[in-house]
Amino acid sequence: MKTIGILTKPKFPDIKHILKDLVAWLRERQKEVVLDGQTAALIGEPATYQKTQIATMADMVLVLGGDGTMLNAARLVEERGVPILGVNMGGLGFLTEISLDYLYPTLDKVFAQEFSIEERLMLRARIHRHGEHVAQATVLNDVVISKGMLARMIETRISINGQFVTSLRGDGLIVSTPTGSTAYSLSAGGPIVNPSVHALILTPICPHTLTHRPLLIPSNVSLEAVLTSHDEGAMATFDGQVGVAMTQGDTVAISASEHRTRLIRLPDRSYYDVLRRKLKWGND
Amino acid sequence: MKTIGILTKPKFPDIKHILKDLVAWLRERQKEVVLDGQTAALIGEPATYQKTQIATMADMVLVLGGDGTMLNAARLVEERGVPILGVNMGGLGFLTEISLDYLYPTLDKVFAQEFSIEERLMLRARIHRHGEHVAQATVLNDVVISKGMLARMIETRISINGQFVTSLRGDGLIVSTPTGSTAYSLSAGGPIVNPSVHALILTPICPHTLTHRPLLIPSNVSLEAVLTSHDEGAMATFDGQVGVAMTQGDTVAISASEHRTRLIRLPDRSYYDVLRRKLKWGND
Amino acid sequence: MKTIGILTKPKFPDIKHILKDLVAWLRERQKEVVLDGQTAALIGEPATYQKTQIATMADMVLVLGGDGTMLNAARLVEERGVPILGVNMGGLGFLTEISLDYLYPTLDKVFAQEFSIEERLMLRARIHRHGEHVAQATVLNDVVISKGMLARMIETRISINGQFVTSLRGDGLIVSTPTGSTAYSLSAGGPIVNPSVHALILTPICPHTLTHRPLLIPSNVSLEAVLTSHDEGAMATFDGQVGVAMTQGDTVAISASEHRTRLIRLPDRSYYDVLRRKLKWGND
Amino acid sequence: MKTIGILTKPKFPDIKHILKDLVAWLRERQKEVVLDGQTAALIGEPATYQKTQIATMADMVLVLGGDGTMLNAARLVEERGVPILGVNMGGLGFLTEISLDYLYPTLDKVFAQEFSIEERLMLRARIHRHGEHVAQATVLNDVVISKGMLARMIETRISINGQFVTSLRGDGLIVSTPTGSTAYSLSAGGPIVNPSVHALILTPICPHTLTHRPLLIPSNVSLEAVLTSHDEGAMATFDGQVGVAMTQGDTVAISASEHRTRLIRLPDRSYYDVLRRKLKWGND
Repeated sequence: MKTIGILTKPKFPDIKHILKDLVAWLRERQKEVVLDGQTAALIGEPATYQKTQIATMADMVLVLGGDGTMLNAARLVEERGVPILGVNMGGLGFLTEISLDYLYPTLDKVFAQEFSIEERLMLRARIHRHGEHVAQATVLNDVVISKGMLARMIETRISINGQFVTSLRGDGLIVSTPTGSTAYSLSAGGPIVNPSVHALILTPICPHTLTHRPLLIPSNVSLEAVLTSHDEGAMATFDGQVGVAMTQGDTVAISASEHRTRLIRLPDRSYYDVLRRKLKWGND
Repeated sequence: MKTIGILTKPKFPDIKHILKDLVAWLRERQKEVVLDGQTAALIGEPATYQKTQIATMADMVLVLGGDGTMLNAARLVEERGVPILGVNMGGLGFLTEISLDYLYPTLDKVFAQEFSIEERLMLRARIHRHGEHVAQATVLNDVVISKGMLARMIETRISINGQFVTSLRGDGLIVSTPTGSTAYSLSAGGPIVNPSVHALILTPICPHTLTHRPLLIPSNVSLEAVLTSHDEGAMATFDGQVGVAMTQGDTVAISASEHRTRLIRLPDRSYYDVLRRKLKWGND
Repeated sequence: MKTIGILTKPKFPDIKHILKDLVAWLRERQKEVVLDGQTAALIGEPATYQKTQIATMADMVLVLGGDGTMLNAARLVEERGVPILGVNMGGLGFLTEISLDYLYPTLDKVFAQEFSIEERLMLRARIHRHGEHVAQATVLNDVVISKGMLARMIETRISINGQFVTSLRGDGLIVSTPTGSTAYSLSAGGPIVNPSVHALILTPICPHTLTHRPLLIPSNVSLEAVLTSHDEGAMATFDGQVGVAMTQGDTVAISASEHRTRLIRLPDRSYYDVLRRKLKWGND
Repeated sequence: MKTIGILTKPKFPDIKHILKDLVAWLRERQKEVVLDGQTAALIGEPATYQKTQIATMADMVLVLGGDGTMLNAARLVEERGVPILGVNMGGLGFLTEISLDYLYPTLDKVFAQEFSIEERLMLRARIHRHGEHVAQATVLNDVVISKGMLARMIETRISINGQFVTSLRGDGLIVSTPTGSTAYSLSAGGPIVNPSVHALILTPICPHTLTHRPLLIPSNVSLEAVLTSHDEGAMATFDGQVGVAMTQGDTVAISASEHRTRLIRLPDRSYYDVLRRKLKWGND
């Protein structure tokens, strides 16, 4: 691991000092540090690389941020599968691995090869309109099809491997990876899914029919959701960050990406520990 | 009951014949029929009245439609409390009293004074911005504050009688009457509330905090919801039909209207019968 | 307020010292203290009164305990409506008013008449079998009809004011007061109901039919639930503390008690504050 | 397929005639029919085999019944993995493949090898007490740990692969296969899981902590649930049919069985069709 990309956001408290120290520390250890323009500016260095260059150059990406920054990083390095180490700058994240206090001891371990890689399923979504391909994205958390601003429902027609499943009326539909099961899907009533389960979660949002429930399907299928309602606007949203306006007849085709997000994991941190702390299990 | 207003929509199947027969039948019985322009046009009569005039003239309003048409009628006649008889043109409605098959026998009963009036709570909502009053509405079902199209959350700060209750993050908030408890609130996980319970239902929509649950409060309180988030647009929607765009700091003030919707009820129809049929209880 | 009854349980930590100090403090202020045998024994005094005598003698009952002890006290003093002050010995209770730290300042206020009384609805339940009356109880929280130990469902036929509502199959049924809405009903998916709403909550427990939802009805009705299944045992439970085995055909008749639980309230404590702290709203 | 076992129950309407015709039809086609005593008695034949003998002799088991009879059959033939064809005698089952109307055409297809086998995960549960092994069972649907009859909660301590997950207080816990996800787990709020997902579903029953949600874990793990509460009795139940009383400290160890239930499937019946019809999706 010679080349280390760093991704962060200016909004984090004290990020300038943290970043300056980190870059110096890495260079002392003969690592090459690659920064995008916005991040370089935080420590007064000239803009050097595009974000997309980081994805092609780095042997590892260090994310200083929250789960939102992690989602961005995951999409950025998708194709090369660069390992990502997440350092949480705020609360306890589901995706970030360590808090800032453990940054340097953790890096020592990582450079000593004392870590494992956890692969996470990503989804690839494509939107088709009148036979044309109008948008696409890869997500680590979820693809959401949701109604416009007026409090009316939308209808989507869902098929799996070409087979009709159901028509769903309501506020919309979340198609989530196991990683995304603790994000929006959980708020909409979906289950928590351990990331090593090979499944997609279809969670209806405020379904009109009271018998619609979250549905888990194998992750190796092709799912299609067609927007069949026409009254109001609808939107497809990728990882809660990128949105595409939809019109009647638009089809969102979703299947597993051939790539995986590769998270750097330390031996002493358990998925269930994080769940317990985030969800305050046992704190009553 | 001398003067009968009729409200309907052109979209219902066979509405022209139904309306023509109904108007003739009423005139034979020396009733004066008042129609708005759109409805008069359906039977080839000249436009005579504004909808608002119907509200001031009619002794009773006959709604041929669904629950949406009923909500419109309720708002229209709010101040004078004109009795409304709902005739369902499609499935079984929660608000409409009878199906088309029973139209004439029911009218005979009504004109023979064989009916009762059921009063339904309405809510009055006012939106304030920087101390100014920007919108207001009366609703029979619900006031909804919901997020814009991108899949991000909004935050509202809720107070009751001036006392802070909670800050709610998620897709939004439904403030519903008991009448509205079987509408959108039910899809969002709210309980079913008999219309004779004097309560408002606060139902969070996809709340971020998993411990937020639907909350029932007495109907004689003043509720305020302030939009405290600023990232994305938000919308206040009245009875799912009228929407007002909101900006950070906007306050929605809600309290019971001094008026009631007055529904014409026949002795042989029970609230629980309707619930059972609509929700298919016992059909498994 | 001359005569003060005290109810507590031996299990609370340090209860002996707390009780000894409290009794001395009260006697210094010329209050007569009435204790049941178990409580008297804790401080080495001879057994003087039965619990039922406390109910007839006391001007006020001081409960040192949790919500369970409060439920007991409420049933004990039901008929005379003796005011109850709850002092929480553990976490934060929904029914107890203060923590131990505030015991003496609060008593000073109470004896200076600086308090209000909050009345809480109680339910009266009677079980009939073959026309005979086999059990009855008054509850402050809930009446629960639930299945026996084997994981099979029971069926209850529910009527309100003699009118059939629904047949419910599943693990059982909770009939809760607003006070009980934050107890078992909440775990079963019921809403939170402010105690000043005049309503009963019917919450199905793991209903077989997915469209069954919690139902709120006015508190001035008569509800009957008949056990119609015969496969397995079923149980009626009152406030989670007293159970009666049921057999097929047994009817549980429930209506509001003519009595109210009368809780002593201080001006500076809000229902919504307690909700917020107990449910950890806003702590994410 | 020479030897056909038949399993049914006397309670089904007209079962005697159906069975008599079926046995004759099979014998005409040179099939050997093996019946247990109870079933043989229905058609006046002498008792010939024990149920367990059917499991060892049959090339295929024909179940005339509902999902309960199917669960029994699955446990019976577990070790040899005999293919099972389910013929529904009542409503539409999740496990039974066809209705009675299609019995003979389906058998023709099956004997012509026009079918596929769908394998279903089974769970193996063992109960340990003070280091001793006190009970065990294999289930196709679920293992349930639930509280006794009085409306009190139990507590279970859950570990996965030796790692502590959470302590769960409430009415109990369901550990379900995907097959069982549409049974009791669904009533308790669990998701629907396609049987080809390799996962177990842990569904809390009326959890005391509001943040506990259904949790999906990979099916190749070892799960342990220890009963840590002592107040009341608790029960472990296997497929809703066999119960074992538990005491404090008892451990239920659950892992995937090495055997699979092998269901005979026809090409023209889809999992999603059954879901849609059973759950009345789209019927509102």
